[in-house]
Amino acid sequence: MKFMENLRNRWHKSGSMLCVGLDPELSKMPACLGADKDRIFEFNRAIIDATHDLVCAYKPQAAYYAGQDADDQLAKTIDYIHENYPEVPVILDVKRGDIGATARMYAKEAFDRYAADALTVNPYMGTDTLEVFLERADKGVIVLCRTSNPGSGDFQSLTMESGKPLYLEVAERAASKWNGNGNVGLVVGATYPEELARVRRAVGDLFLLVPGVGAQGGSVAKVLANGCDSTGYGLVINSSRGIIYASKESDFAERSRMAAEQLCAEIAAARKAQSC
Amino acid sequence: MKFMENLRNRWHKSGSMLCVGLDPELSKMPACLGADKDRIFEFNRAIIDATHDLVCAYKPQAAYYAGQDADDQLAKTIDYIHENYPEVPVILDVKRGDIGATARMYAKEAFDRYAADALTVNPYMGTDTLEVFLERADKGVIVLCRTSNPGSGDFQSLTMESGKPLYLEVAERAASKWNGNGNVGLVVGATYPEELARVRRAVGDLFLLVPGVGAQGGSVAKVLANGCDSTGYGLVINSSRGIIYASKESDFAERSRMAAEQLCAEIAAARKAQSC
Repeated sequence: MKFMENLRNRWHKSGSMLCVGLDPELSKMPACLGADKDRIFEFNRAIIDATHDLVCAYKPQAAYYAGQDADDQLAKTIDYIHENYPEVPVILDVKRGDIGATARMYAKEAFDRYAADALTVNPYMGTDTLEVFLERADKGVIVLCRTSNPGSGDFQSLTMESGKPLYLEVAERAASKWNGNGNVGLVVGATYPEELARVRRAVGDLFLLVPGVGAQGGSVAKVLANGCDSTGYGLVINSSRGIIYASKESDFAERSRMAAEQLCAEIAAARKAQSC
Repeated sequence: MKFMENLRNRWHKSGSMLCVGLDPELSKMPACLGADKDRIFEFNRAIIDATHDLVCAYKPQAAYYAGQDADDQLAKTIDYIHENYPEVPVILDVKRGDIGATARMYAKEAFDRYAADALTVNPYMGTDTLEVFLERADKGVIVLCRTSNPGSGDFQSLTMESGKPLYLEVAERAASKWNGNGNVGLVVGATYPEELARVRRAVGDLFLLVPGVGAQGGSVAKVLANGCDSTGYGLVINSSRGIIYASKESDFAERSRMAAEQLCAEIAAARKAQSC
């Protein structure tokens, strides 16, 4: 099924706009999982089994697998989701951006090697570096716009001659030029609620991947108030550490579910309060 | 040895500013290498053995290994260079850029898992996302500035309120803020010689990684005229396809050497003509 259909179905059927980030760090794994390398997959599997009905997507961050020589654990994790919970799309967070021939190899990596349903990309190198991803109408392409980190304004908020900040130039192109296949989204951090509102006004119903709630301090209420689309959905609100590390004991999966339920409830309450 | 020392030694001792891009594509491998997956490494090894005295660096492009499920071939290639030609630094072309905790994992990938001497990074997310790389004084950090692709101007050339294009804002920060450890370089495409000259004027003797000669059409003469630093070096001029695919027959390594010699001679002649 197409990524966007899958995502919309999840919003409507589960009522959830929560995405769980699968960013497992060996040094933070519960001791009960032992010392085997496969414990990355075992950890992810337990989290996935405990939370699948509460999420609209999973988002493994590629760096955690690449940095820990655990590419096989990433492959097993994504396969496990597809086989057991095919209704839940997988966003591979890789932030790729490179010239055409190279971008084609990155598309092979994300969509063929790992069978991800969507990926994140960096727009700095320009439209031609995104084309090979945009062409894949069945896949989601989520472009960095205004990221959640403290220094994201260094370049993203520089004012252009047009009077607009760079992130808004990116947002406008995403909506007007890149979304011909209806498969484009944008990354906008929960830590910048005003910018989130500006992006939403600029892009109509494009979906927004929103990191930065939880450990990074973004407010769920403001995300909902400023970010919902005209249908009352349109958001993929990511939490990683707050959910996957809810406990380091043998109850870690159960506790991750409790953390996910709590964040889901917070999102639902904020949605109701804003009647978005 | 520190990357920058290594690179300067190579410039001075070999007289070469040529970097060979190791971007092996299975569909383009010489038939004589057979069908074994290890042929990626065998291909690279033959090219490396044939060209090591002509280059100032090698630059494997990570996408070709990630996209072809060949991470082991990348590791073997870099190990082979370090063991046999330790005087030649290896730049891992990965164009990473992510928030702090994630960037740390990417630093582990490039410097620990693959033992690269330098990597390429994308500045879009801001200074804090580069810090974990910049801190590694022994490693080179090469920031995308004005890339070689046709669409690179889409954002990089947008004029800021300051009157400067975005790529120049990046260049100025690289020189004034990020280079405290003397380990920073910039990517500027040979396909944009005027921009190359502007960057060189703005950054003093920062080294520049210059893709885009050969298959992409950039002029070596203009690169030397516009890009040399005050010592007459300062450039890492990359060619991938023009060298590694000089022949598809069993003479591919010999022919790659001939192509590298020709490009070296072209660089040397242009350097002499410009007396840089």
